Amino acid sequence: MKRVKCTISYDGTHFSGYQIQPNRRTVQGLLEDTLSAVHKGERVRVTASGRTDAGVHANGQVFHFDTPLSIPEEKWPVVLNTRLPDEVVIKEAQYTPEDFHARFSVKRKEYRYRVYTAQSRSPFLRHYALHHPFTLSVDDMKKAAEHLIGEHDFTSFCSAKTEVEDKVRNLQRITITEQEGEIIFSFTGNGFLYNMVRILVGTLLEAGSGSLRSEDMKDILEAKNRNQAGKTAPPHGLYLWKVEYGE
Amino acid sequence: MKRVKCTISYDGTHFSGYQIQPNRRTVQGLLEDTLSAVHKGERVRVTASGRTDAGVHANGQVFHFDTPLSIPEEKWPVVLNTRLPDEVVIKEAQYTPEDFHARFSVKRKEYRYRVYTAQSRSPFLRHYALHHPFTLSVDDMKKAAEHLIGEHDFTSFCSAKTEVEDKVRNLQRITITEQEGEIIFSFTGNGFLYNMVRILVGTLLEAGSGSLRSEDMKDILEAKNRNQAGKTAPPHGLYLWKVEYGE
Repeated sequence: MKRVKCTISYDGTHFSGYQIQPNRRTVQGLLEDTLSAVHKGERVRVTASGRTDAGVHANGQVFHFDTPLSIPEEKWPVVLNTRLPDEVVIKEAQYTPEDFHARFSVKRKEYRYRVYTAQSRSPFLRHYALHHPFTLSVDDMKKAAEHLIGEHDFTSFCSAKTEVEDKVRNLQRITITEQEGEIIFSFTGNGFLYNMVRILVGTLLEAGSGSLRSEDMKDILEAKNRNQAGKTAPPHGLYLWKVEYGE
Repeated sequence: MKRVKCTISYDGTHFSGYQIQPNRRTVQGLLEDTLSAVHKGERVRVTASGRTDAGVHANGQVFHFDTPLSIPEEKWPVVLNTRLPDEVVIKEAQYTPEDFHARFSVKRKEYRYRVYTAQSRSPFLRHYALHHPFTLSVDDMKKAAEHLIGEHDFTSFCSAKTEVEDKVRNLQRITITEQEGEIIFSFTGNGFLYNMVRILVGTLLEAGSGSLRSEDMKDILEAKNRNQAGKTAPPHGLYLWKVEYGE
């Protein structure tokens, strides 16, 4: 058996999220069905870097699977893409040592969130960016974001539903850039809690509209209480952008 | 009765084109149903600047309708947008003199066509730009385009199915710009024949890939024969971008 690492992009709009669920259309379900067909019906399991929720997109999700087939690595994308619907694209495949694990070997992840501020809704962005037709101060959001950088207990920025005990994560980098009527948030860290990026964005938008001060971020972190942070921004603006592994 | 001019944007993906047809989901059908609901069931007809085919998008389509209602013009977009699905957005509405006609008063139209040349398909562009993962010379396409500017008989660049007799049109401007992995074609003219922009793009792509020389454009125009031009580019890269009226 050889282990294959795949980098994949998908439009999450018409999926009930990444993770396989009975009677639901999921990205994992689709990948496993496709791989099983390639393996003549033999069930193939895939392991991704993590889940994404319904409506959330991926530019560079990573998963691995094991195979007895000897298909050259550059052929794997072709073999799979011809069988996958065009909402899902295998961008790259590589054989890796067997100790590579798409989830446990993750070193860093980057998520991006797209917001557009035009007065009119755009029919072309309805599944791909949050429409927020209000004045936002990018400077105020950048100041607020500074308080979030580094190692913190992110309990306030995590869905109350989560089962994870340890909520300390290291948020290494946040960038907020404005271009052509869009504001792009980028978050890079060693790990993210459930809904963390969407709550961070919801809270930063409040800082950008003046309903929170940048210093309030410190208090929100210290409160370790989900109710202190802003709303959870909707899923359709969110992209799992990149997953990095220690080489 | 007062005449209302509306500027509208729509994602053409899930429509059988603009023009109303029995038992099909069309933009015109949706607009007329929505306006009829606002007029308490009284049938309201709308007249657009022209049709767009299935899968073709609009950034700035224009239509007019007549109404006995006295809704302030800035309220019309709100009244209609709350009732329309989010694939269709009324961007602006204005009361106009009764001699304004969305089709007959057109002075100029601009169409755009998006092509992306990345090696990998993008799941996010599958409905919004043509994937053409081959080397293209923008310079060669610009040279070829120069031969198309001006008043010509565009029979070679028109679907053989068309019923229009006079195929002379004035193509005032063609721009071809490259940005962030995309090539955007823009065509401005006083009128366009059926499939004309898509055939122009299909032919310019052949010039860009070296299978046609720029001078061949002259011969293709002179032949007045659809078979001499290139393929009809697919609908999903095409946008009715802007309609201008003489003020």
